[in-house]
Amino acid sequence: MDLATDYPKRSLEAHIAYKWKVAISSKVPLTTKDDLSVFYSPWVAAPCLEIAKDPENAYAYTRKGNSVAVISDGSAVLGLGNIGWLAGLPVMEWKAVLMKQFGGIDAIPLVLSTQNPDEIILTVLAVAPTFWAINLEDIAAPACFYIEEELQKQLSIPVFHDDQHGTAIVVLAWLLNSLRLTDKDIASLKVVISGAWAAGIATAKLLIQAGVTHIIMTDSKWTIHSGRTDLNAYKTKLVPYNTTNITGTLQDALIWADVFIGVSQPNIVTSADISTMNKNAFVFALSNPVPEITYEAAMAWGALVYASWRSDSINQINNLLAFPGLLRWALDARLTRITDAHKYAAAQAIAWCISHPTPENVIPSPFDLQVHERVADAVRWLWNI
Amino acid sequence: MDLATDYPKRSLEAHIAYKWKVAISSKVPLTTKDDLSVFYSPWVAAPCLEIAKDPENAYAYTRKGNSVAVISDGSAVLGLGNIGWLAGLPVMEWKAVLMKQFGGIDAIPLVLSTQNPDEIILTVLAVAPTFWAINLEDIAAPACFYIEEELQKQLSIPVFHDDQHGTAIVVLAWLLNSLRLTDKDIASLKVVISGAWAAGIATAKLLIQAGVTHIIMTDSKWTIHSGRTDLNAYKTKLVPYNTTNITGTLQDALIWADVFIGVSQPNIVTSADISTMNKNAFVFALSNPVPEITYEAAMAWGALVYASWRSDSINQINNLLAFPGLLRWALDARLTRITDAHKYAAAQAIAWCISHPTPENVIPSPFDLQVHERVADAVRWLWNI
Repeated sequence: MDLATDYPKRSLEAHIAYKWKVAISSKVPLTTKDDLSVFYSPWVAAPCLEIAKDPENAYAYTRKGNSVAVISDGSAVLGLGNIGWLAGLPVMEWKAVLMKQFGGIDAIPLVLSTQNPDEIILTVLAVAPTFWAINLEDIAAPACFYIEEELQKQLSIPVFHDDQHGTAIVVLAWLLNSLRLTDKDIASLKVVISGAWAAGIATAKLLIQAGVTHIIMTDSKWTIHSGRTDLNAYKTKLVPYNTTNITGTLQDALIWADVFIGVSQPNIVTSADISTMNKNAFVFALSNPVPEITYEAAMAWGALVYASWRSDSINQINNLLAFPGLLRWALDARLTRITDAHKYAAAQAIAWCISHPTPENVIPSPFDLQVHERVADAVRWLWNI
Repeated sequence: MDLATDYPKRSLEAHIAYKWKVAISSKVPLTTKDDLSVFYSPWVAAPCLEIAKDPENAYAYTRKGNSVAVISDGSAVLGLGNIGWLAGLPVMEWKAVLMKQFGGIDAIPLVLSTQNPDEIILTVLAVAPTFWAINLEDIAAPACFYIEEELQKQLSIPVFHDDQHGTAIVVLAWLLNSLRLTDKDIASLKVVISGAWAAGIATAKLLIQAGVTHIIMTDSKWTIHSGRTDLNAYKTKLVPYNTTNITGTLQDALIWADVFIGVSQPNIVTSADISTMNKNAFVFALSNPVPEITYEAAMAWGALVYASWRSDSINQINNLLAFPGLLRWALDARLTRITDAHKYAAAQAIAWCISHPTPENVIPSPFDLQVHERVADAVRWLWNI
């Protein structure tokens, strides 16, 4: 886990070399006056008038049906915090590259010069007619919850905050396959989630939908319990899942826990902490780029399964497993929203890509292209029933 | 000029066949975990942090420096009027295709779900960080003037309303070459412009910058003169150029005129009207798709030069002559605005692409790729002095 690698330098060089990593490509060679007349002025009037008659015709004559906006205000970029909208642009551009390569989606990166939630909502509503889905990205909690909810209320196209739901889906997939390694039951798991921001809250909510009943969340003020008076509405909803009302620190919460999910800060969990967990613990250390605990430290004290974002770790997990297939199908089926049922189906499809999970192999690689097809298929199946 | 052609049908079929006429293309094949790690998570953090340190670095690490937003509210699409934002999308998509093919520009079509000028302004300001220029398109007058002015005041990137300035540039180019066919002097021309909307007002303003001193505009209430009390601020500014304060109809204005520029309605000028103009009149009939007067009717009564938008007409003119080269250089030089000097230089460059103008050949073809290079060069030269 040595950060003094040449990775940052390689990344900067690669970004300069591939500055045009996303580009608009035109698939129509216009070569004659007649081409120009048919395609553009004046006869582009024909499809315009067809769409004016019936908006449905936009799917036949334009790219709207394959278009997703990737929108950020730069308020929570990767694990770097609020580095500003322009500094978030490289992430949005790569998201567009990944959507194309793994989902065939035309995604448009848009960074916004405002971090005011209501201004963000108005802006997204204003640009929405161009797209069939809105992918929110790297927007800080709790504003991201409000923004997503309001947009989904007002729009009849899917609004998907990948930091929340993409993470929740891959964590659930990992958890489902980890369970296949043991005789533990999902309803009896004691789950500790460190980090009550976008990813943590969304993960807790999806795990509850999947049957988890005991979740202790921790934030900078320690565990979320019924005695706290400083909780926002999103954290408050999770209080009942701290079933034994554990107070105290993350370390207090980890005692006899079965699952640790870190979406918080580097190096906050030690081997000694892991040793207080139940036997065959699942450790999912997602702080990025430096995890809450290293693979070696976690395994040294009895964890059964470990995963992190890092490509140099075993069981590297990545939202990339979820969003291309899920959004592909959202476009193909013209879903009007992505529900918990879709997210659960996606998680299950990802999990089932591994026929025989082992502690070293609980989650598939995003380069295994069947993953994206299976995710799309799973959601498609749901939609047909 | 028979409209009962197969063009609308061909256009619809072509739009379905080329539904993906603009697409996002990714130029980086990601094939390994290491690629993903360097380009995306976690090491995309490196360029993000560089941009957070200095916004200038966005030009090295992202596509911003080659990106133009093509934005419309659908309030004045082609000559079709207010057909709504979604119905304008085919035009915006083709604009993106043309910007790529003729200027190498990555243009993003965005149609907005509002026709409120202040909401449009707020939306464009919000999405602006993603782009190095804003191309407004098919927005109705007079709102388009206010929107462009306000945006240009608040943004330090060029804001270019092509319906106004693109048209003005190609009309000026055509006028400059028409003058080369005669011994007329630009300052003594009597110019009549029919249509006091976006294109008409902008054309009048640029012609004045180029040395025209006599302009009579007409709108639905006939000529713009000092006795009118119903004029908006943009029309009022043109009253002094009606130097002999001609009142009455378009027909009254055309008597002894040297130039007719129509950016208004089909078939409103007759051969008899042309016969009242000065000898060797220039007739520029830009109503689209049906011009103010046909080529045959204009020439029958003594016009020297005729042009229209139509591809089946001689001297087909098209904004496509101007915007790719102009915006190409605006990006390359990182212009903060496009001035009248840039527009004049572009018009001159277009005109000079024709070495020896004849009445049948006053304006180059946009497929003559030197046009776009010459426009960019002309603006570049301006910038260097």
